[in-house]
Amino acid sequence: MKQIDNFKSIVDKYKIVFFDAFGVLKTYSGLVPGIGKTFEYLEREKKEYYIVTNDASRGPQQLAASYHRMGLTAITEDRIVSSGMLTKEFLDLKVPDGIVAYLGTPASAHYIERSGLQTMPMSEVNESNIDKVSVVIFLDDEGFDWCNDLNKTVNLLRKKPIPAIVANTDRAYPLTASNVSIAIGGIAAMIESVVGKQFIRFGKPDSQMFMFAYDLIREYRQISKSDIVMVGDTLNTDILGGNKFGLDTVLVLTGNTQAKDYETRINAAGIVPTYICDSAVVDLSELDL
Amino acid sequence: MKQIDNFKSIVDKYKIVFFDAFGVLKTYSGLVPGIGKTFEYLEREKKEYYIVTNDASRGPQQLAASYHRMGLTAITEDRIVSSGMLTKEFLDLKVPDGIVAYLGTPASAHYIERSGLQTMPMSEVNESNIDKVSVVIFLDDEGFDWCNDLNKTVNLLRKKPIPAIVANTDRAYPLTASNVSIAIGGIAAMIESVVGKQFIRFGKPDSQMFMFAYDLIREYRQISKSDIVMVGDTLNTDILGGNKFGLDTVLVLTGNTQAKDYETRINAAGIVPTYICDSAVVDLSELDL
Amino acid sequence: MKQIDNFKSIVDKYKIVFFDAFGVLKTYSGLVPGIGKTFEYLEREKKEYYIVTNDASRGPQQLAASYHRMGLTAITEDRIVSSGMLTKEFLDLKVPDGIVAYLGTPASAHYIERSGLQTMPMSEVNESNIDKVSVVIFLDDEGFDWCNDLNKTVNLLRKKPIPAIVANTDRAYPLTASNVSIAIGGIAAMIESVVGKQFIRFGKPDSQMFMFAYDLIREYRQISKSDIVMVGDTLNTDILGGNKFGLDTVLVLTGNTQAKDYETRINAAGIVPTYICDSAVVDLSELDL
Amino acid sequence: MKQIDNFKSIVDKYKIVFFDAFGVLKTYSGLVPGIGKTFEYLEREKKEYYIVTNDASRGPQQLAASYHRMGLTAITEDRIVSSGMLTKEFLDLKVPDGIVAYLGTPASAHYIERSGLQTMPMSEVNESNIDKVSVVIFLDDEGFDWCNDLNKTVNLLRKKPIPAIVANTDRAYPLTASNVSIAIGGIAAMIESVVGKQFIRFGKPDSQMFMFAYDLIREYRQISKSDIVMVGDTLNTDILGGNKFGLDTVLVLTGNTQAKDYETRINAAGIVPTYICDSAVVDLSELDL
Repeated sequence: MKQIDNFKSIVDKYKIVFFDAFGVLKTYSGLVPGIGKTFEYLEREKKEYYIVTNDASRGPQQLAASYHRMGLTAITEDRIVSSGMLTKEFLDLKVPDGIVAYLGTPASAHYIERSGLQTMPMSEVNESNIDKVSVVIFLDDEGFDWCNDLNKTVNLLRKKPIPAIVANTDRAYPLTASNVSIAIGGIAAMIESVVGKQFIRFGKPDSQMFMFAYDLIREYRQISKSDIVMVGDTLNTDILGGNKFGLDTVLVLTGNTQAKDYETRINAAGIVPTYICDSAVVDLSELDL
Repeated sequence: MKQIDNFKSIVDKYKIVFFDAFGVLKTYSGLVPGIGKTFEYLEREKKEYYIVTNDASRGPQQLAASYHRMGLTAITEDRIVSSGMLTKEFLDLKVPDGIVAYLGTPASAHYIERSGLQTMPMSEVNESNIDKVSVVIFLDDEGFDWCNDLNKTVNLLRKKPIPAIVANTDRAYPLTASNVSIAIGGIAAMIESVVGKQFIRFGKPDSQMFMFAYDLIREYRQISKSDIVMVGDTLNTDILGGNKFGLDTVLVLTGNTQAKDYETRINAAGIVPTYICDSAVVDLSELDL
Repeated sequence: MKQIDNFKSIVDKYKIVFFDAFGVLKTYSGLVPGIGKTFEYLEREKKEYYIVTNDASRGPQQLAASYHRMGLTAITEDRIVSSGMLTKEFLDLKVPDGIVAYLGTPASAHYIERSGLQTMPMSEVNESNIDKVSVVIFLDDEGFDWCNDLNKTVNLLRKKPIPAIVANTDRAYPLTASNVSIAIGGIAAMIESVVGKQFIRFGKPDSQMFMFAYDLIREYRQISKSDIVMVGDTLNTDILGGNKFGLDTVLVLTGNTQAKDYETRINAAGIVPTYICDSAVVDLSELDL
Repeated sequence: MKQIDNFKSIVDKYKIVFFDAFGVLKTYSGLVPGIGKTFEYLEREKKEYYIVTNDASRGPQQLAASYHRMGLTAITEDRIVSSGMLTKEFLDLKVPDGIVAYLGTPASAHYIERSGLQTMPMSEVNESNIDKVSVVIFLDDEGFDWCNDLNKTVNLLRKKPIPAIVANTDRAYPLTASNVSIAIGGIAAMIESVVGKQFIRFGKPDSQMFMFAYDLIREYRQISKSDIVMVGDTLNTDILGGNKFGLDTVLVLTGNTQAKDYETRINAAGIVPTYICDSAVVDLSELDL
């Protein structure tokens, strides 16, 4: 089976590094120990990096702030590409006006606001404004009454032929070492099967996530896909999506895929990373400083 | 395409009639007008009949009482076969002791109670009793806090290798002429996909429902499957399940399948009833009394 | 985790034993060594036994003959319940006349023949007889030209609203220690998704298989489900189906589920057998003869 | 419901038009009558256009030649973006060397050839070369023995953790007015379910198709997604994919979606095109020439 590689030696081969967030940079208990060194090294070596995450519960500014509070200041707002940003691009291009009815917290809806479009929690949709609803967005599993608002969503989507956008495709997310929470992607899949219509999903493994990050860079310089390596902990999002988009990929063993069974899982899924590393931490003590 | 048949002339050909409940005998607004005549006729002709329903929200006694309140006294407790009764049989055969953690109203749990087994709403499961939980049952979409109790269910099932029973496979049910509600079957499917384990489902189109009704009759007399006709309004539960079990089937147009598009739907689904009738009402005025 | 039980001590607790065939009694290389002793013991103890198999490639007579050729004479025709027999029952009850177009070998079609019904390989269906085709049956992966006959099947089912029966739900079967073959259940699933109609499937884990065997016994004596134990090597057919029907179940480690990972698999699937045994072999040397 | 729009007036609003091929430009019986006028108009108005097709059975050169033979010379090789081209890009970026084992005709494999990589029909894979196989590609439903080569593919993919690429996601394609053929996408889905691994799929509705075409244009000029309109006949590929990528979309009624039921289908699928037109034909007689 594949050997375990040294993360630094991989980084040295590429100009740009894409990182997944959860399971790679942080876990439920905080930052992955030593991950700060990685960004120190990337800055010193003038490598570019982006965080490519399925987290649509907050905007890039808030996500960056949360890293800063944990002490990782290298991750600034402009380094973050989230599935929520694809949702915002969709609204900008395809929804000229009307009400965006959403499921999630006000914070999750904040960054998709723009003039001409009114965001409204599903709980406030009623007879008087339903005609103006032009899209439904699934943003976060918190901030609404599941029973009332999900039943309201079902009936709204049965009656109106409008798009439904799922801004986070994950079905669950880790809450503690042993517990998970149902994610908005799992909830949206239930609504989709009850309504019987096809929703639009943004998030890895879908290529559009990688495309968005790739395009951000190309706005100011020429690059090729072979200059980029994608680092993730989850085979069927980070690695499958990165491979399909044509990127080299690194599986790290600090999150969803663990040292004890990564070989079994790779074989079972048929999703093969280019490299496997214990973590995304660069050991600076190895360096000839 | 198939012609519309006269319901009375069909009933005359069989000894036993199985009826689906919702969409055949009653709708969201009450009894199907004239349905009382059908049971008058069945009694007079000494035909046997059973209500075969995916409703697990109440026990047979309570279901019968609800028909009596609407004025249909022919439907007594012993005429009702519900997916909840299969759940009860499963518990009797396979769960000798422990706690049955359930999602639903106390009424839905009432009839599965028996000595040796303790029923407990999911909200009351905690550190002190979790070790005794020996099965999880999805009974009804009401009576619990969706967000809290569903997340608790996910984590319970991730940790304990115990069976999860879905006592109603329907994903939605009609609430009014234009609105539906998410049913416990839809909720259970979401939990199943998040947990990644295989749940046990009771309810049409599964054969075990028909088998249960068939066995009830055979306890006191000899019959053959060709003596029975199944009457339902839904192609992929009543008609598919009845056909597969080897029964002749009648599609009625008073519920989920309507006169305007039943041909399209039969062709699209490839599920073909033996007969099609406007309703399950027997017109007594046709009779030579 | 669950302990490994002694097979003989389990058998001693029940009156009737249901066995899966492949992976329990035999493998690709012949009989499971010592399995003959088990039937010696069952005969001596006057236990009843049935082979409950998803094999629809041959009739019970031919299946029994194949055991006899391997030296296991205890398995007679009347001890075998196959998904093909449910297919035959379906035809008897639901298909009064016409042509049964089938995919499989002539041998697989032989035992579903009866007067009034003509069996015809799909390759012989043409303009002159297509109007008489009243059902399509998927019997075996051999005996037909996949490309021609599957495309013909797709177009036949798109045009005619007739039932399609899948007599074996398995998607693959073992051919050698390291190779498998695509089974007719896998082929049928492809045709179903292309045609977009719902097929009727017979075979474990569906309850109708177990009911068929259960009914065979009840024709001549009174039994209860608690008198029966189901022995199988596959969690999601033998064990899931047996559990759901209300039977106690034994997982043996001679086939699809192996000693090295049965615990992982049971936990992952959430399908829990009542007992786990190394094999279904009774060690007669243990006996006080 | 939505009104039927005039195709010319839509084209006038955009700089670039993406066309699906089958059902828009041609059908099983040849070119859509009058479609030549559309390209006459596009050339005159200096609009750009691309054919964005899930057809991986031939390379762009051969596809262009087939239009020329039908008399549509405006469609040149450089105007064609096929899912086969994404397959080629994947090989270029991710498969440095080894054997590409393929299912399809030699013609379908021709255009993915390049130095360093050997293409080989699945039938020629054997003990002596299997170690060098580094990827499996599903290209076309013709050119191989379904039974032998699909079973060989299953066993190859079970043993080797290598990627499997599906170059055409369609499950069926129209052959005549009343008949379809199973497409390689349907076959690949069967193999995927038997093998239990996740394949990589290229083709609409996946965004990567649209991005490939979008990038082709951006190599020589600046454009925005709002300059492009996607024209297609199929809701769940052309329209869903175009919408998701952020393009305006036109549903035409000359292929999979017909005038008689387009409203029903749009409502059922919840996939809403920006415009609906009878066809993609521009009526030049309307023009003030």
